[in-house]
Amino acid sequence: MQAYKIYIGGEFCPTNTKLKVFNPFDYSIVAETYLAGKDELEKAIEKAQKVKPILRDLPSYKKYTILMQIANQLEEKRSELALILAREAGKPFKYALGEISRAIQVFTVAAEESKRLPKEYLSIDWTTAGEKKEGLVKYFPVGLIAGIAPFNFPLNLAAHKIAPAIASGNAIIIKPARSTPLSVLELAKIIHQTELPKGAFSVLPMDREAGNQLVTDERINMLSFTGSPKVGWKMKANAGKKKIALELGGNAGVIVSEQADLDLAVKKCLVGGFAYSGQVCIHVQRIMVHEKVFETFVDKFISGTQMLTFGAPDNETTDISVMIDEDNARRVEDWVNEAVSEGAKILLGGKRDGSFFEPTIITNTKQEMKVCALEIFGPVVAIEKFSDFSQAIDMINDSEYGLQAGVFTNSIIEMNHSFNELEVGGVIINDVPTFRVDHMPYGGIKNSGFGREGVKYTIQEMMEPRLLVKNTDY
Amino acid sequence: MQAYKIYIGGEFCPTNTKLKVFNPFDYSIVAETYLAGKDELEKAIEKAQKVKPILRDLPSYKKYTILMQIANQLEEKRSELALILAREAGKPFKYALGEISRAIQVFTVAAEESKRLPKEYLSIDWTTAGEKKEGLVKYFPVGLIAGIAPFNFPLNLAAHKIAPAIASGNAIIIKPARSTPLSVLELAKIIHQTELPKGAFSVLPMDREAGNQLVTDERINMLSFTGSPKVGWKMKANAGKKKIALELGGNAGVIVSEQADLDLAVKKCLVGGFAYSGQVCIHVQRIMVHEKVFETFVDKFISGTQMLTFGAPDNETTDISVMIDEDNARRVEDWVNEAVSEGAKILLGGKRDGSFFEPTIITNTKQEMKVCALEIFGPVVAIEKFSDFSQAIDMINDSEYGLQAGVFTNSIIEMNHSFNELEVGGVIINDVPTFRVDHMPYGGIKNSGFGREGVKYTIQEMMEPRLLVKNTDY
Amino acid sequence: MQAYKIYIGGEFCPTNTKLKVFNPFDYSIVAETYLAGKDELEKAIEKAQKVKPILRDLPSYKKYTILMQIANQLEEKRSELALILAREAGKPFKYALGEISRAIQVFTVAAEESKRLPKEYLSIDWTTAGEKKEGLVKYFPVGLIAGIAPFNFPLNLAAHKIAPAIASGNAIIIKPARSTPLSVLELAKIIHQTELPKGAFSVLPMDREAGNQLVTDERINMLSFTGSPKVGWKMKANAGKKKIALELGGNAGVIVSEQADLDLAVKKCLVGGFAYSGQVCIHVQRIMVHEKVFETFVDKFISGTQMLTFGAPDNETTDISVMIDEDNARRVEDWVNEAVSEGAKILLGGKRDGSFFEPTIITNTKQEMKVCALEIFGPVVAIEKFSDFSQAIDMINDSEYGLQAGVFTNSIIEMNHSFNELEVGGVIINDVPTFRVDHMPYGGIKNSGFGREGVKYTIQEMMEPRLLVKNTDY
Amino acid sequence: MQAYKIYIGGEFCPTNTKLKVFNPFDYSIVAETYLAGKDELEKAIEKAQKVKPILRDLPSYKKYTILMQIANQLEEKRSELALILAREAGKPFKYALGEISRAIQVFTVAAEESKRLPKEYLSIDWTTAGEKKEGLVKYFPVGLIAGIAPFNFPLNLAAHKIAPAIASGNAIIIKPARSTPLSVLELAKIIHQTELPKGAFSVLPMDREAGNQLVTDERINMLSFTGSPKVGWKMKANAGKKKIALELGGNAGVIVSEQADLDLAVKKCLVGGFAYSGQVCIHVQRIMVHEKVFETFVDKFISGTQMLTFGAPDNETTDISVMIDEDNARRVEDWVNEAVSEGAKILLGGKRDGSFFEPTIITNTKQEMKVCALEIFGPVVAIEKFSDFSQAIDMINDSEYGLQAGVFTNSIIEMNHSFNELEVGGVIINDVPTFRVDHMPYGGIKNSGFGREGVKYTIQEMMEPRLLVKNTDY
Repeated sequence: MQAYKIYIGGEFCPTNTKLKVFNPFDYSIVAETYLAGKDELEKAIEKAQKVKPILRDLPSYKKYTILMQIANQLEEKRSELALILAREAGKPFKYALGEISRAIQVFTVAAEESKRLPKEYLSIDWTTAGEKKEGLVKYFPVGLIAGIAPFNFPLNLAAHKIAPAIASGNAIIIKPARSTPLSVLELAKIIHQTELPKGAFSVLPMDREAGNQLVTDERINMLSFTGSPKVGWKMKANAGKKKIALELGGNAGVIVSEQADLDLAVKKCLVGGFAYSGQVCIHVQRIMVHEKVFETFVDKFISGTQMLTFGAPDNETTDISVMIDEDNARRVEDWVNEAVSEGAKILLGGKRDGSFFEPTIITNTKQEMKVCALEIFGPVVAIEKFSDFSQAIDMINDSEYGLQAGVFTNSIIEMNHSFNELEVGGVIINDVPTFRVDHMPYGGIKNSGFGREGVKYTIQEMMEPRLLVKNTDY
Repeated sequence: MQAYKIYIGGEFCPTNTKLKVFNPFDYSIVAETYLAGKDELEKAIEKAQKVKPILRDLPSYKKYTILMQIANQLEEKRSELALILAREAGKPFKYALGEISRAIQVFTVAAEESKRLPKEYLSIDWTTAGEKKEGLVKYFPVGLIAGIAPFNFPLNLAAHKIAPAIASGNAIIIKPARSTPLSVLELAKIIHQTELPKGAFSVLPMDREAGNQLVTDERINMLSFTGSPKVGWKMKANAGKKKIALELGGNAGVIVSEQADLDLAVKKCLVGGFAYSGQVCIHVQRIMVHEKVFETFVDKFISGTQMLTFGAPDNETTDISVMIDEDNARRVEDWVNEAVSEGAKILLGGKRDGSFFEPTIITNTKQEMKVCALEIFGPVVAIEKFSDFSQAIDMINDSEYGLQAGVFTNSIIEMNHSFNELEVGGVIINDVPTFRVDHMPYGGIKNSGFGREGVKYTIQEMMEPRLLVKNTDY
Repeated sequence: MQAYKIYIGGEFCPTNTKLKVFNPFDYSIVAETYLAGKDELEKAIEKAQKVKPILRDLPSYKKYTILMQIANQLEEKRSELALILAREAGKPFKYALGEISRAIQVFTVAAEESKRLPKEYLSIDWTTAGEKKEGLVKYFPVGLIAGIAPFNFPLNLAAHKIAPAIASGNAIIIKPARSTPLSVLELAKIIHQTELPKGAFSVLPMDREAGNQLVTDERINMLSFTGSPKVGWKMKANAGKKKIALELGGNAGVIVSEQADLDLAVKKCLVGGFAYSGQVCIHVQRIMVHEKVFETFVDKFISGTQMLTFGAPDNETTDISVMIDEDNARRVEDWVNEAVSEGAKILLGGKRDGSFFEPTIITNTKQEMKVCALEIFGPVVAIEKFSDFSQAIDMINDSEYGLQAGVFTNSIIEMNHSFNELEVGGVIINDVPTFRVDHMPYGGIKNSGFGREGVKYTIQEMMEPRLLVKNTDY
Repeated sequence: MQAYKIYIGGEFCPTNTKLKVFNPFDYSIVAETYLAGKDELEKAIEKAQKVKPILRDLPSYKKYTILMQIANQLEEKRSELALILAREAGKPFKYALGEISRAIQVFTVAAEESKRLPKEYLSIDWTTAGEKKEGLVKYFPVGLIAGIAPFNFPLNLAAHKIAPAIASGNAIIIKPARSTPLSVLELAKIIHQTELPKGAFSVLPMDREAGNQLVTDERINMLSFTGSPKVGWKMKANAGKKKIALELGGNAGVIVSEQADLDLAVKKCLVGGFAYSGQVCIHVQRIMVHEKVFETFVDKFISGTQMLTFGAPDNETTDISVMIDEDNARRVEDWVNEAVSEGAKILLGGKRDGSFFEPTIITNTKQEMKVCALEIFGPVVAIEKFSDFSQAIDMINDSEYGLQAGVFTNSIIEMNHSFNELEVGGVIINDVPTFRVDHMPYGGIKNSGFGREGVKYTIQEMMEPRLLVKNTDY
């Protein structure tokens, strides 16, 4: 069996603690790797500290070359990596392939953005005090970043921290989820072959104690966390003087207006609702349908759901597979049962088998039920009807979360209202909230997050502006 | 009777040739002024040449102060100036007041933009050739600008050249229309009181020979012309090495979709069609109405037109008055008669009385008729029906002009098609093409113009970028 | 004696707790006002909550008008306000006048920026996933902001929070320093006369308990604090999900290079070192002078310092007056004495008389002495020599702070090194770190702060981006 | 012998007129190709017209892919293409290789910029007239571009028109110089293999009559010309309604300040002065050296020049080879002789042998001599001394040209003066005016040009803005 060494600032090392990685579909062991403890983290931090001045001064063309090499190598190993990812995460192969493609895009865009770091040239002479002076603003890397990545997109959500860190001249230590460390360790092998200065990048699967130190260590200048709201907000309080970026979850909603293209809406909602068993931050959890088209929509949506193929994640034809572990499947089951006991009605699915949970459609829910109010992170979609568009907006907004929302409509008025009034980070017209391309600004408001990701936007958050005021003559 | 001296680079002077300014409504003399010839132009150019280096180095706060003083003085004299403008241009007082307000806005925005001149700070090290280098781009004034303004907005369309010229550190010589030189000479009095260096600004009503020299003189670095297409395009050929900006006319169209808000469309089209007797570059000349709402629209539009009040321009209640002169009124009459003789049908109006031409609505026109194909610059609107939205787009595009277009719709699809396919400089959704606020980019494509105005955009056209490449270390 | 009511969301109210405001020069009472407690804060928050939707939708022109009215009223009352400010803060009148002028500038720039809120239009079709889609990013106000302002620029540092809040459509509650609440209460009178919706603005001098609630209350969406590092960083930990901006202090340094213009350097350092007795975040605390020019510089600097005129703050000729209170003067005295006991040498000054501390120049300091290492916030300047430019940079960087630095030089190489290597928020070439114009990005790194102020930059921090992804055709 | 067919909108075709391409070093025939006449041009225009709508709607990712494929193919054929280029242009192989690398960079940058076309999102509600409205500005391709490329960088200066045209969705017809059509016909083979819609690109070596039609044909929307000032400015007058970009020549100057790094200055001036026998628009034609360092500089410069290796262009060790033809070498000889007869002194070189002209250094020139006043486009450098920096600036500015200038200095003051006062498109500090990286804005003022190239800047010139004004609510 393959044993992946972890990557400490340029060296692949074992540690004293082994970590087994299972395929959640059949509990087979995918590979072994290691857990880092305080010592390994200390080593990674020290190496990062040393390499900071070199990173800061890397010319654009070097960063560009490094990032494009990574993108090209990912392209070359696309299928191989997708297989590893499918197995460690239990993610259907076709979605795993899609994730690799997105990571390639992330590194490509970061390569381009490394040449376009934010810069500003401004006049200063707006009052006599500034006469004959002008200003330049250059952005400098914050220094060292800790990136904590989740299990659901183990490669691409790590890439969303690594690629911008390289582009902006920062060092970064990545802590992958303990269940899914392999694809990012594969990425480490690729990065190791580039001319990225050693020390700039580490991948450390960690125990809890070492993980906490990522939050509190003063030598780390920024913490970028993707994961659950509860953990994320606690980190903010403990992060000291660090900058912080939180990409948390939500209970994303869709509005299907009276005049929507229903076939389009159904097709998109099937993917948004059930891809990777809904274990996606912007999974379609709630669909609000205008009463005049409610029944048609529901019929089509149920039919579509019934066509999804269950199977092993590494099978190319699989649409839906198991959840990441049985605990999560049980949690989803409990929430659904609780909802039913409080009056909700199951239109399809609702059953659990081990760590598999059926694609499930429910209705008659109330906003305060867990299936609506909390992030379900499972293949469950609640569909409700509305009679007036502003009611639909209120229904979406009646949540402590605000990540993205989708709106199917052809009305300019409805589009405008959606943009102005939906309390979310992104409003997607005629597509699901699950829509994300990797260069767009992405992130939530309310409890769903803090800051924005999306390569260029992440780069900006990973840098500090410095102003130069100079004479124009002397 | 008041005699306005002309303004030659800081001095108010008479010349040997008097110019009488008439009120087109009653042929009363509004005031007398003077025509400049070659000598006066020479003097203005020489003064401008001398002041160039001072203008280039004016700090932002001085330009800001000068421009805000102008705006404040215009505000103070608003009614007085509106009256002069109403009389020289035959423009209904309420529209004249609106024009002064817009000129105030132009100078205010220019004041703000004088602090925000374009500047760029860019990385150069995209290849090894640029290693350790970076670039700055600063914009410098081109030097001396000749601005030729039309009769229809004698103050505001001159302001659109003067205010950006001051903001960008250029000298400017304005040639007003011979029929309407007074309001801009009033402006000269205001500007004379500010600290704008003398020589930076001249107002010269001119005879044809001197006017031609504005086009050909090599000491003038840019020509900014607002007027007829025929004259404008000829200037482009004769302008030598000058930069050139042309704001010409068009035959602007409106599309009223099946699902438009008809009352809104009618209300807006009444203003767009008949304000200042249609003597507006973006006058609504053609309205394409979906066949299902055609009759309703036409009925409402006729009723609305019948409510317009005819009167003297300096009367506050006047909606519509005479045209700028009888020649123009006759030309409009001829075009309408010709259209009728070729099959068009008059729904309302169509009669001329001296230099007054009735607000006129026609239908059954063909695109090749002069009333459709040429710029009518009179109170005539052609209304036609369409059955399919892309047909309406083709009808608008079937023209050698392309200034602005209006589209009344609530459909996102129709909005998108309009934006992507209407061959114009500006598409106005749910308003008429006549819509213009003074900071927006404004200008035509096809035969309607060359370049964009709109304060910030004009400023950019009046400047030349200069790149500085410098070491980041040495 | 005048009693200033506090301003609670549109109403001027007394409270149960009076607060006397003293002139620190002669302990005369300037005026009385009131302290707000929990109830008043609750009322202010509730009013702010209610007015949020109205603020969000205020059109640009209304915000512009409100902000310009404020600027104009400040202009009109400039001397009167300067007198109040001079008295409450013990700030020499000429500097108080300067502060009013800067506040006018802040509101003027905010008026202009209210029309230029950040907006982005981006292509989405970088991969097939985004085909026929495009994106818009609009920025929305975070909602309610708590602004905590310090005693040293009681009007202008409050203005730096209030003006951007209005420009960005936020409500704001200002807590002024308890020693200097009057000038901002005068501002409240001015703002009350404008059309800013009532509830959008409150001024609450507060007791400690209520002050803490500004940090912890979940209804407040952002905390903007200007004050001491110790207090600021603690707030960050307690701020929950809020956005936070910290403008803290530093121990700003100046480098005087071998080839500097010494007279310029001395002239600027006198202001930077002793204006308002050094009670300025970017006060010149440390001067590093090249050994070849050290003696000349020191001689000139001592002579200059000896010319400063001591007097009452409200006297127009006063250069230097008392400190804010005797406690602070004693603290400065202690630090200087401690430094001397550890080997530092006093070149001038060093004596205290009540709350007056003499302008003091010391040398032979060590970086770890309090006079160097901590923020002295008093009229004390340490001058040291260096032999090599990079040594000077190291000396400046050897600090836990990083706000601004000044460098006097004519060398491109030295300028480049300064910009690339000085670990500060702003590097000022040929001027002191005390240089600030109000539209420039301003703020510190390391322990000196978090985020940037400077109208446009503050506005950006007070807003959240929201993305709209829409079809380009459908 | 290889016969290159010309490329007419997707088809490789012969014509009735053969065109032989010679190696200027030994008059050997490099290859044969064909001249296009009116018929071929007509065909190219018609094909371009047809493909316009498809080009306009190409998504970013398709344009990106096409442009990156071209870059990759150029990379693959780098040596092979460099050899062809060296032979057709008589360009030393090492410089030919450099040109291919730059063309690769041009296509790479254009690929990136195709995803970043200019777009603007602006608020409209600055007055009541714009309430509840907002604006979008999207840029649309002008349509069809004619690109006329010169012999000296036959591939890269064509690439500077082709790559931006593709990125911006325009069709383009390239007319290469008749002496150097081969490398761009090789490029056509590469482009033909991509998915660029056929019709979008043509390469037509042309006779004079057909060439003229590129200027006058109304179906061509923009003319982009790189070549001689005389031809260029005449085109501007004849271009009708077209947009026009002119990249013309100059007599670029260098200033070597008293405190310059002389070794650096010499090293850079050797390349700037003699690379490709000075047949470069930004060739170093004039060097102004401070009198204190004049003799040292001249000695070093002469020594350096003497080290240059003469040889065949396709030899890897060749530094300098023949000029493009004997006519040009004779012209250079005449100008030098004329200068000598008027008092100039030859310090090195001055002899012609066939089409080879020796690297030549002269002094004692006067600004009105042809070697100074006109563009020499040959390996001749005039060196003069100055005593005061502003004198040096005046000497550079005493020219009808203004492309780029180089300044060697370490003085901030001198850098500032240079940037503010040198009347050129680009000021290069501590490098020669010959410095160009392909993404920077590049172009001249005065007689040296009209508009800017540099991928992003060219793209902007090849597009027209279109404004959409829409309601924010309705």
